[in-house]
Amino acid sequence: MWGPNGHGAILLVNCDSERTYGKRRDSECAEVTRVSDLKDMSPMVLRTSGPAKLPEGYKLTMHITQGDAESVRVFGTRSTDYPLVLGSEDLSKEVPYLGGNAEMNFYVEGLRFPDKDFEGLISISLSLLEPSSQGFPETPIFTDRVVFRVAPWIMTPNTLNPVEVFVCSTSDNYQFLKGMRRLVEHSGYKLKVCHQYMNRGDRWMQDEIEFGYIDSPHQRFPVVLDSPRDGELQDFPYDELLGPDFGYVTRMAYNEEVSSLDSFGNLEVSPPVTINGKNYPLGRIIIGVAFPTATKGRNMTKVVQDFLWAQKVQEPIALFSDWLHVGHVDEFMTFVPAPDKKGFRLLLASPDAGYKLFRGLQNDRHGQAKMFDGRLSVRGLISVYVVTAAVPQSCIDWNRDVLKRELGLDDDDIIDLPILFHVTEENRAVAYYPDMVNMIVLGKNLGIPKPFGPKVDGRCALEAEMTSLMEGLGLSCTYIDDFASYHKLLGEVHCGSNVRREPFSFKWWNLEM
Amino acid sequence: MWGPNGHGAILLVNCDSERTYGKRRDSECAEVTRVSDLKDMSPMVLRTSGPAKLPEGYKLTMHITQGDAESVRVFGTRSTDYPLVLGSEDLSKEVPYLGGNAEMNFYVEGLRFPDKDFEGLISISLSLLEPSSQGFPETPIFTDRVVFRVAPWIMTPNTLNPVEVFVCSTSDNYQFLKGMRRLVEHSGYKLKVCHQYMNRGDRWMQDEIEFGYIDSPHQRFPVVLDSPRDGELQDFPYDELLGPDFGYVTRMAYNEEVSSLDSFGNLEVSPPVTINGKNYPLGRIIIGVAFPTATKGRNMTKVVQDFLWAQKVQEPIALFSDWLHVGHVDEFMTFVPAPDKKGFRLLLASPDAGYKLFRGLQNDRHGQAKMFDGRLSVRGLISVYVVTAAVPQSCIDWNRDVLKRELGLDDDDIIDLPILFHVTEENRAVAYYPDMVNMIVLGKNLGIPKPFGPKVDGRCALEAEMTSLMEGLGLSCTYIDDFASYHKLLGEVHCGSNVRREPFSFKWWNLEM
Repeated sequence: MWGPNGHGAILLVNCDSERTYGKRRDSECAEVTRVSDLKDMSPMVLRTSGPAKLPEGYKLTMHITQGDAESVRVFGTRSTDYPLVLGSEDLSKEVPYLGGNAEMNFYVEGLRFPDKDFEGLISISLSLLEPSSQGFPETPIFTDRVVFRVAPWIMTPNTLNPVEVFVCSTSDNYQFLKGMRRLVEHSGYKLKVCHQYMNRGDRWMQDEIEFGYIDSPHQRFPVVLDSPRDGELQDFPYDELLGPDFGYVTRMAYNEEVSSLDSFGNLEVSPPVTINGKNYPLGRIIIGVAFPTATKGRNMTKVVQDFLWAQKVQEPIALFSDWLHVGHVDEFMTFVPAPDKKGFRLLLASPDAGYKLFRGLQNDRHGQAKMFDGRLSVRGLISVYVVTAAVPQSCIDWNRDVLKRELGLDDDDIIDLPILFHVTEENRAVAYYPDMVNMIVLGKNLGIPKPFGPKVDGRCALEAEMTSLMEGLGLSCTYIDDFASYHKLLGEVHCGSNVRREPFSFKWWNLEM
Repeated sequence: MWGPNGHGAILLVNCDSERTYGKRRDSECAEVTRVSDLKDMSPMVLRTSGPAKLPEGYKLTMHITQGDAESVRVFGTRSTDYPLVLGSEDLSKEVPYLGGNAEMNFYVEGLRFPDKDFEGLISISLSLLEPSSQGFPETPIFTDRVVFRVAPWIMTPNTLNPVEVFVCSTSDNYQFLKGMRRLVEHSGYKLKVCHQYMNRGDRWMQDEIEFGYIDSPHQRFPVVLDSPRDGELQDFPYDELLGPDFGYVTRMAYNEEVSSLDSFGNLEVSPPVTINGKNYPLGRIIIGVAFPTATKGRNMTKVVQDFLWAQKVQEPIALFSDWLHVGHVDEFMTFVPAPDKKGFRLLLASPDAGYKLFRGLQNDRHGQAKMFDGRLSVRGLISVYVVTAAVPQSCIDWNRDVLKRELGLDDDDIIDLPILFHVTEENRAVAYYPDMVNMIVLGKNLGIPKPFGPKVDGRCALEAEMTSLMEGLGLSCTYIDDFASYHKLLGEVHCGSNVRREPFSFKWWNLEM
C-alpha cells in the first residue's frame, strides 16, 4: 500500500553488476555474485514459533507463482554460501524447521521493472504441509505471505544537485571540452569524458542514455536507462557505466522502427509540481511525440513509452516535438532552479521573444549590428523571423498550453528566450543560431550554447538578454562555444552532455497513489 | 467509472459472425459484414455546434492511439455503406464539418477482450485542427474524447435458467442420449446434439467449451470460450456455434504445455455471493490447479488464467484439483438452486458421507446388499473406504475450507454426497462408482449419473439418499445411465454435456469495483 501510512515490503531490481570478470547484471547470474551483492537484495526474515520438532512428516515450504518467477528470486543463507531457494526452476522448496522460536534469513532479488504486463507486485508464500499417504502431494494447512513492490526507476530533474557530468571527446571538439571542463570543475562537480575508442565519433551523450536511480529503505543506486537509439555510443552504458552499485536497464524495439524521437534528448523530467491539489513530488516525465491527430509522424517507441508509464511515480506528459527536424523536447524547453514561486522556471524557446529583442535593437538604431559571421544583421534576423517564425511559435505555444495545464504553471512560471528557428526543405524546424535553451544546468551555474548574436556596444545582445533574464533568479551564465562541433551538426550543449544527479530526498513509497 | 452512479460508454468485442460464407469473426473482417453487424457495435454520435462553415483550412479529425488500435475500430455512415474510419491502418482521419447544429453517426467496434496487458479501457478523440503553413501538420487547438470500457466475458452458474443443452452423439452412447433427451425435453429445454462427423468420437462436451455472454445497454449475445484442450471436438465451437449473435473467443497456449486441467470441466462459476460485506452479484469463477506448494503438478495454462482474471467481474478462486486423475473441479463439487438461505447449496463429494451411509446399511443388516455388478457388497464398499478414503477426503476438506472462506459459506450451505474414490497407480483419485456430484442442473431438475449402488428393498441405497437430500430443496432427481459410455472412460453426465444459460439480470456495469 502506497503512502506515508502504507505498508508492505520493497524490492530492488538487481540490475547492477558486482562481477569483476565477464560482466553481466547480477540478476542474470545464476548465483550470488559476491557478498556485496546481498546489499542489493531485500532481507527477508522467516520467524517461526512452535514445538521443538514438527510432527512426523510435517514440513515448511516456501513458494512463489509461475508468473512471479519471472520477476523475483529468493536466496537462502548457509555457513559458506547463499544457495538459490526459489526461481523459475524451483517455484516451491522445503525450508528447514528449526524448532522453538527461530529466525532464518533470506535475500529477495528483483529481476524486472514494472512494465505494461507487470504491475510490480510479487508475493512470497510460506506454507505448513501436512503429510499425505500414497504419494499424494502434502496438503498446505496454513499459508502466510509477504508482498513486495518492485521499486520504480526514477528520473532526476535539473533542480537536483549534480554528481558528475558526462561528455564525449571527439577529434573536433577540443574547444567545447575545454569550456565544459572549466564550467563543471568550477562548479565543483566531476567531469567524465567518454573517449573516442568508446564513442566512435558519436558525440550525443544526452541521446544514448538517461540517468535515474532506484531506491529502497536498505539500498539505493543509480540506474542508467539505455535508449533503443543505439548509435555508435551504444556500448558505453553497458561497458562503462554498469558496475557495482550502478544499474543498467534497456528496452529493445523488436517490431518497431526506431526514430530520432527515441533519443533521450527527447526524454526529460519536470521538478516537483502540484496540479489542482494533486502532488507530484518526484515531478513528471516529459517526452516528445507527433500530434495525436497526425496521419503520419515520428514517435517514441511503444516499448519505451510503456516502460515509462509503468513506473507510475512520475506520470508522463507527451509534448509535440515532431515539428522539429531532430524532434527532441530539449530543443525548445528546459527547467532551471529559482529561489521563489514553485522553486523553478520553465524556459521556452520563443521566436516572438527574439523578434521583440531584435525590433528593440532596430528601434535603438542597431539595425546594422551583425551576427558573428558578419553575414546577417539585426534587420536580416527580423526578416528571418517574418518568413519562418509563425509555425515554430504556434507549435511551442501549443506545448506551452499543455505544460501549463499538466504541470499547473502560470505565465509567471515561464520565461521566453529569444530563439529563432528556420524551416528545412522537409518542413521541419532547426535552431537558426545556437539554441540557448539547450543548456546544461549545474546547480546555479548554467552552461549555455554561445549564441554569437549581433554585437551591440561590443557585447552580444543575445547573451546580454539571456544573462539578464537568469541573473534575476540568482543563476550564473557561462556561454560555451559549441558552434562548429555541435550546433552545425544540429545539436547543442545539452545534446552533447549528460548529468547524473543526486536522488530526491522524497521517498517514492510515500507517494499517495 | 463502475457502479450504479458510474459513467462512460460500453463496447462489445464483435466476436460473432454475421457472414453467410467463409466464416470469420466480424472483428476479423475488413468491413461491416452486414447491416445487422452494426447492432454489435456501440453507436457513437458526434454533435457539433458552430458556424455554418469552419474558417479556411480548419478541420475536424477523429483519432485513436496506436495502443488502442489493437482493441477498437470506428466505422462511419454514408448513404450506401459504412466505411472504416479508424483502425490500425488509420489512427487519425478527417471527419466532415456539417455546420450549425449537426449530428453524425459512427459505430465503434471492440476487437479484443480485457487481458493481462489490456485493462479494457479505450478512448476516441476528436480534435479541431488549425492550419499550418509550409506543410507542417495542422495544430490541434481543441480536443474532446470519449472513453469506452470493453464488456467482460461473463460465465453463468447453475442457478440461472438453461436455454439449451449440448451433448455428443457417439457410436456407443445411445442409452445415455436417450436418458438426456427425456430429461431435457421434459424440463422444457432444447437438446442440441453434436454428431459424430463433428465430434470424431470426442464425447466430452463440457471440456472443450465454456458458455458465457457479453452484455451492453444496446446489445447482448452468448460467447463461447474455446479451451486450448483441443481434443477431437476442437472445430465444434468455431464451425458450429460461432454465428450471428453468437460469439467466439479462445486463448492459445503457445509456449506452455496443455494438461487435463485445461479442460473446462475444471472451470465453473458460483452463484452470486457476499463475503464479509463484499458483493459478487455475478458469482465467482472457480478453477482447479495444483497446490501452490507442489514442486511439480498440473495447472490450468497461464493464458487462460490471465484471461479469466482480467475480466474482473467474477474474481476467480483457485481450488486444488490435481489430486484427481482427471483433475477437474466438477469431479467433487457443484451448485444447485435452493429456495432458502443464500439461494443455493454447494454439493461436495464426500467419502465420509459414503462411509456413514454404508455403515448405517450394515447396522441395519444390509451388509450383504450388492452393488450393480454383484461383485461388491456394502461390507466391501466399507473396506474400499477404509483403504482409500483418507487422502481424497482430506483434499476435499481443504477445498471445502477454501470455498467457505472465498464464497462466505457456512456448513449449512454445504451438502455432502456419499461418493467414494479409489486411487490409481499414479497416486491420483478416480470416482469408484458413478460420481453423482458430476450432474447436470436444469432449473429444479437434476440429471445425475446413475450410481448403481447396493440395492436395499429393491431400491438403490445411493439414489435413495441422494433423492432424499435433494427433495428437501424442491429438486427432482433423474438418474441417467452413463456407466459404460462415460463413467468407465473416467467422466460422467456433467463431463458429457454443456448448458447454455440465460444471462444474469444484474448488469455488470453496476458492479462496485
